[in-house]
Amino acid sequence: MENITQILFSLFLIYASAKLLGELFERFKQSALIGEIIAGVLLGPQVLNLIGTSEIFPVLAQIGAIFLLFTVGLQTKVEDIMTVGRTSLVVAFLGVIFPFIFGYLYILIINHSTVEAMFIGAAMVATSVGITARVFADLGIIETKVARVILGAAVIDDVIGLVVLAIVTGLGKGALSFVKIGLITLEAIGFIAFLILIGRRVVYRMIPRVASFRTRDAVFSLAILFCLLLSVVASYIDLAAIVGAFLAGMVLAELNIEFNLSVKTESLYNFLVPFFFVILGSWVDLTIFTRPALLWAALVITIFAVIGKLLGCGLGALNLGKRDALMVGFGMVPRGEVGMIIASIGLNMKAIRSDLYTVIIFMVMATTLVTPPILRGLTKNVRSET
Amino acid sequence: MENITQILFSLFLIYASAKLLGELFERFKQSALIGEIIAGVLLGPQVLNLIGTSEIFPVLAQIGAIFLLFTVGLQTKVEDIMTVGRTSLVVAFLGVIFPFIFGYLYILIINHSTVEAMFIGAAMVATSVGITARVFADLGIIETKVARVILGAAVIDDVIGLVVLAIVTGLGKGALSFVKIGLITLEAIGFIAFLILIGRRVVYRMIPRVASFRTRDAVFSLAILFCLLLSVVASYIDLAAIVGAFLAGMVLAELNIEFNLSVKTESLYNFLVPFFFVILGSWVDLTIFTRPALLWAALVITIFAVIGKLLGCGLGALNLGKRDALMVGFGMVPRGEVGMIIASIGLNMKAIRSDLYTVIIFMVMATTLVTPPILRGLTKNVRSET
Repeated sequence: MENITQILFSLFLIYASAKLLGELFERFKQSALIGEIIAGVLLGPQVLNLIGTSEIFPVLAQIGAIFLLFTVGLQTKVEDIMTVGRTSLVVAFLGVIFPFIFGYLYILIINHSTVEAMFIGAAMVATSVGITARVFADLGIIETKVARVILGAAVIDDVIGLVVLAIVTGLGKGALSFVKIGLITLEAIGFIAFLILIGRRVVYRMIPRVASFRTRDAVFSLAILFCLLLSVVASYIDLAAIVGAFLAGMVLAELNIEFNLSVKTESLYNFLVPFFFVILGSWVDLTIFTRPALLWAALVITIFAVIGKLLGCGLGALNLGKRDALMVGFGMVPRGEVGMIIASIGLNMKAIRSDLYTVIIFMVMATTLVTPPILRGLTKNVRSET
Repeated sequence: MENITQILFSLFLIYASAKLLGELFERFKQSALIGEIIAGVLLGPQVLNLIGTSEIFPVLAQIGAIFLLFTVGLQTKVEDIMTVGRTSLVVAFLGVIFPFIFGYLYILIINHSTVEAMFIGAAMVATSVGITARVFADLGIIETKVARVILGAAVIDDVIGLVVLAIVTGLGKGALSFVKIGLITLEAIGFIAFLILIGRRVVYRMIPRVASFRTRDAVFSLAILFCLLLSVVASYIDLAAIVGAFLAGMVLAELNIEFNLSVKTESLYNFLVPFFFVILGSWVDLTIFTRPALLWAALVITIFAVIGKLLGCGLGALNLGKRDALMVGFGMVPRGEVGMIIASIGLNMKAIRSDLYTVIIFMVMATTLVTPPILRGLTKNVRSET
């Protein structure tokens, strides 16, 4: 075990560099997430090598990922998804299918295993709501129909992304067979259905009782407990822990405002989530830049990630007119947390190797960097016409 | 490394049992802290053995202790201590000297080393503000003079307790000599003086700049950074990490309300601090109850802990009249976080063995359990007379 002083020093360094580089990237109108990953690359073993080998760091990263997805879940009401409209639904589904198939086929073609291909496909699925929403909010057009379609679709494809992850994780743990795919899909859907139909009722009956407990912030404590419990259960039945955390948030989403749950989770998020992104960054294999074949693969995957969403989501939104369909398509391009989580899970369970992991991180960063200027260009026209 | 599912399961169990037993004890008008320690005893290796051996648990406990002391620091304004009045100051000092000497001498007499005797003495020093404040608040007499004297004195003896800890920690790391005692005392006082005189100014100049940063909650992030940094520095110069965390809080105390720092720290506290108390509980050696000599030592230490405060603080408050002096004396009896932290640091650096560690935990729990009913009895008379 490393000395506690060393561990505290690493904690300080990780948190400080994440916040510093995050701020720097935000000043250049980029996502703080990219700054945090780069902080991890810099602190990682290939550059400064300042993160210790203690197992505390990957575990803290995992706890960070759990609170990250819990927060996303808290903002995802079941009702909102149900009523988001046919367009968002179609956009989300087509936007999942195209990138998955592109990624899956390409990875198979360059001679990797089926499980690897499925992980890469899965990691290309989920749009990051945050970045597009941020650009739209900055431009003051978050209330337009295009924005609503994108946000609705992004939430839905988070859910689909997590279901795909649940399936892929289950598959990664053993031999592949159609029976197994079927069983794990059923398990994932059963878990979600159980929570939404029964888990919700149980929680809603417990909350008023717990609210009168003497323990300070008893409802928030119950929310944390619920998040930990579902993470354990999801992890135990071979779905990913974060799928459980996301569902815990989703089940509690309707109580979010009444009990200030997101607000209270915010400081846990603030403290713990940077560890997740920095540790993710520290796993990046920089030798990718010395291996032309791999660099080539990263570029192709990035292009497929862009074209997949443009085609899928653009087709899905064609009823809004061509230009709006184009905006929806580009708006859905940035990948973020969920893609990286899928890559990191694949890496940790040794279903993918560090080269493909790095390809995914490259793709996430590239799609995130490329989107804001394109969206700004497209929306400039919108505003000048209206 | 343990499997992540197992670690998450332990996290869930620790958090759940802490909250459950905490609630139970609060219902019996006791401190939640006792419930959390008992949760740790139950989950510990001698009973259910459900806490894994992963190093993540002691590290999480340490992070919990850091946020605990940071929160206490945030509520401790330098100005308040300066103006708290001569009575509180005298009460605090005498209330530190008597228990320390009693504990120190008794441990020497029963044939332990000087370092052990100093750790036990140090662990007997600091009153837990929380329990007395809670009883007084419940009885609606928190605004009386007696209450103000006690609260002021309790804050001061936290500070003194941490200085004593700083010195004792430094001593525990090597051979004992008067030169070394002098050097470490100077180091501790120098560190504190530097922070209060210079650190405060630096922070106060940085805060307005940081407040305009793009990073969400930038001031709170800076506060966390400052807390981590001072913990590392304190740990590095052989003071305890928590001394740094406490001082970080104290330096920021005046900005606490403006920037909502305590409020924002609350959920970190809620999530992380239970790990500290549960892990402390899991280190308790239950064989104490089969060893008459040790049980005897625990009783004697507890009695000295009570008499030391009664005598020291009672004498210091004699100018308030005999009955109020008695109330002040009893009000200062409960020990809490700081005493247990000192014991756990001693255990971890192998300055004390698990038998004396358990004696301290016994003393903390006994003084905490015994005080509320006595205070209620004494205050009943106060209220019926006024």
